[in-house]
Amino acid sequence: MTERLAQIVGPKHVLTGSDAEPFSRDWSGRYRWSPKAVVRPGDTAEVSKVLKLANDAGCPVVAVSGNTSVSGGTTADGAIVLSLSRLNKIRKIDPHTQIAVVEAGVILSNLHDAADAEDMIFPLTFGARGSALIGGCLSTNAGGSNVLRYGNTRDLCLGIEVVLPDGRIMDLMSELHKNNTGLDLRHLMIGAEGTLGIITAAVLKLHPKPKAVATAMIAPRDLRVALEVLNKLNDATGRGVDAFEYMPRSHIEGHLALSKGAREPFEDRHEVNVLLEVSSTRPVDAQVDADGTTALTGLLEAELARRLETGDIADAVIARSEAQRREMWERREAAAEVAYTREPRVDSDIALPLDKVAGFFDEAMMRLRSLDPEVSNISVTHLGDGNIHYCVYPSRDDETLKDGIRETIEQIVAESGGSFSAEHGIGVHKLSTMRRRKDEVALDVMRAIKTAIDPKGILNPGKVFPARN
Amino acid sequence: MTERLAQIVGPKHVLTGSDAEPFSRDWSGRYRWSPKAVVRPGDTAEVSKVLKLANDAGCPVVAVSGNTSVSGGTTADGAIVLSLSRLNKIRKIDPHTQIAVVEAGVILSNLHDAADAEDMIFPLTFGARGSALIGGCLSTNAGGSNVLRYGNTRDLCLGIEVVLPDGRIMDLMSELHKNNTGLDLRHLMIGAEGTLGIITAAVLKLHPKPKAVATAMIAPRDLRVALEVLNKLNDATGRGVDAFEYMPRSHIEGHLALSKGAREPFEDRHEVNVLLEVSSTRPVDAQVDADGTTALTGLLEAELARRLETGDIADAVIARSEAQRREMWERREAAAEVAYTREPRVDSDIALPLDKVAGFFDEAMMRLRSLDPEVSNISVTHLGDGNIHYCVYPSRDDETLKDGIRETIEQIVAESGGSFSAEHGIGVHKLSTMRRRKDEVALDVMRAIKTAIDPKGILNPGKVFPARN
Repeated sequence: MTERLAQIVGPKHVLTGSDAEPFSRDWSGRYRWSPKAVVRPGDTAEVSKVLKLANDAGCPVVAVSGNTSVSGGTTADGAIVLSLSRLNKIRKIDPHTQIAVVEAGVILSNLHDAADAEDMIFPLTFGARGSALIGGCLSTNAGGSNVLRYGNTRDLCLGIEVVLPDGRIMDLMSELHKNNTGLDLRHLMIGAEGTLGIITAAVLKLHPKPKAVATAMIAPRDLRVALEVLNKLNDATGRGVDAFEYMPRSHIEGHLALSKGAREPFEDRHEVNVLLEVSSTRPVDAQVDADGTTALTGLLEAELARRLETGDIADAVIARSEAQRREMWERREAAAEVAYTREPRVDSDIALPLDKVAGFFDEAMMRLRSLDPEVSNISVTHLGDGNIHYCVYPSRDDETLKDGIRETIEQIVAESGGSFSAEHGIGVHKLSTMRRRKDEVALDVMRAIKTAIDPKGILNPGKVFPARN
Repeated sequence: MTERLAQIVGPKHVLTGSDAEPFSRDWSGRYRWSPKAVVRPGDTAEVSKVLKLANDAGCPVVAVSGNTSVSGGTTADGAIVLSLSRLNKIRKIDPHTQIAVVEAGVILSNLHDAADAEDMIFPLTFGARGSALIGGCLSTNAGGSNVLRYGNTRDLCLGIEVVLPDGRIMDLMSELHKNNTGLDLRHLMIGAEGTLGIITAAVLKLHPKPKAVATAMIAPRDLRVALEVLNKLNDATGRGVDAFEYMPRSHIEGHLALSKGAREPFEDRHEVNVLLEVSSTRPVDAQVDADGTTALTGLLEAELARRLETGDIADAVIARSEAQRREMWERREAAAEVAYTREPRVDSDIALPLDKVAGFFDEAMMRLRSLDPEVSNISVTHLGDGNIHYCVYPSRDDETLKDGIRETIEQIVAESGGSFSAEHGIGVHKLSTMRRRKDEVALDVMRAIKTAIDPKGILNPGKVFPARN
């Protein structure tokens, strides 16, 4: 097999033994595996040949992009690991049609840079942008902190090229904004975590680069009011809110304890702290007054003054310099660091209907305390899209207790019509939750589709689809 | 069968013979058929029972909404016609979370009214809004004239409830903005034209109602410049352009000839005429000056003045009253009437990559003239999303000539990476085009999915999936 793979991609692009080591574990070290071989095809035709070979032999294939999964999405014991990293060409950046055409191995931050050079943005962004590849973003329908305004990865994608398990190449590389010609296979492949086909290229939407940005910290009266404030701000700025990130007091204190030089966001202490950012492409919003304040900042100021008056918010600070803005963002982006300082820990990545977010925190603590009276938590929430990264610290490292915590959170999420995986996908990590919590009929339909498209089950086996009960 | 259907839905909701007549033809009279019976279930449970009965008997079922298809999407010879019209409850309109929960039989314009009462909009709109039902909009992923800003129907839908061919109910009624839990079955069902399951309810996104609207006719120098002008206007208004509709001189003249009291849009005659509308939720944009002009109109005026100066546009008129605005929209909305005055005629509903639209018209006329030197055309184009309603008049009523015209248009569309069905779907009308022009591998995957989900092939048979060559 190794020899025949070498004939397709060239011997130096087939890695085995110690050379395969970087492809034998996830970035966190939580999962480890022994691949049969790592193969690095140079183009779509080679991907096709590798899959045909593997499918004929019934050999599993796991596609890997930047290896930044947090769900064990690319464990690959005994499988061919297919790395997309050599398919790294940005084929086109067109500011006129606001489109980028890229190969699956392009690093997300490289696409950011290429778009920026044309005065455009590709809005998808998150912590791992320097190593995550576009193919992985598409396969997991990655989220991040701009979903509120620009949508998830699937909302930023017009077309894809996919290699099917048997090596056939499916050309859905459309640049079209309207196209109703049968079943939407693009959306089926996006988010399928490499279980139905391997995405090799994509047509992506670009957006114009904002000309003005304004950033603030506010303290809404409570979480119920916070959503109201978000709607008002969106109306006042013409849907200009890019980010609306909730940090409870516990996060602020965790950050103060962790980080030298960290400061309180306000003079007074508040339970509800929100980082918000608005931006605009309007040249009039970028006009600067005598104080050096942009019109957009003035608009935000006026709106926040109104909310202070009504009592919707108790406090507000607008960043007056890039340094102040950076300080606000650093507080938010330290979230993983702040959360990971303590053990034992149970993480989650949940989404709730927007009107259920406010009630979640009290309900969760109430139920969790009945399992463990000394339990505590820390969290950050993309409040605009209902996605809560909720992290629980039990008082003792007990697997039964941790399982109980997981199931309790799952149960509240299920009762609220929420999702047990907002943006991290299923992989192997959430297979058992998927079996317990996903609509049974939907699971059956997913399995039927998997069998129809990948009858030999060679693509990323053991992920996404739980075995039947 | 009729008796058993009556046991499920009640005898007065099973129609046969002359009572079934309104469900035995499409609205245009182009297609006619003889259904076995028409059944009107009152809720999802009854839909489920009807499908189980039909599936066990191997009897075809065709779901019908408002019967406004232009592609013969609901022809139903010998089939049970399943009308969704009694599932007509609007369950929730929530301006706080900006969500509507509706049943599939809700009339689109009823949802418009209900949203309006809460100071919200459901942006999807098109000519047939007074009879089209939400279920049909979802099943065909309907487009319309606001796609540029708000997307197609699928972009406005967060969740659906679907009854599968065997009667099982699949609950995907999510209100979530982030949810990565396996294959995206929502997007698979949307646009499937009732061939995989029957959508019975949906969670839809609402948007805040704009506080200011400004409408104008402009004459861009040429179509290449028009897209540039659109981008500039979108930047200047913060992505505020709702509509950007191109009408060539031939449409203007057709409208003048057809409509008493119709007037020229400008003093001079121009080849490229564009109706544009911008809107804003910003209260500051709704502020009125001494002349009664809103700030948004002032912004549009300033931007158009700049474009007149650079020569990007040759002429511009801004509507100064609701009457003037209506006159502009009536000219555009007369499109079907203008096009349908002449016979013989070949219609099309194509989409092109945005940078291919400008070249299409010359290329098409050049090639069509080699088939018929006296051929002429008329068209309207949603320029912001590349969707051209292109209507050709051959000099004689000859089926071979008309087929030649169809294939010529298809060929140019294929060469440009375009779509032969932008927003009207496949139905039976475009089955042969689907066979000729759709990616072969994609067709195979579609057929495999159809067989996996509807193994007996009872749902809307003979649509969407062309037989193998």
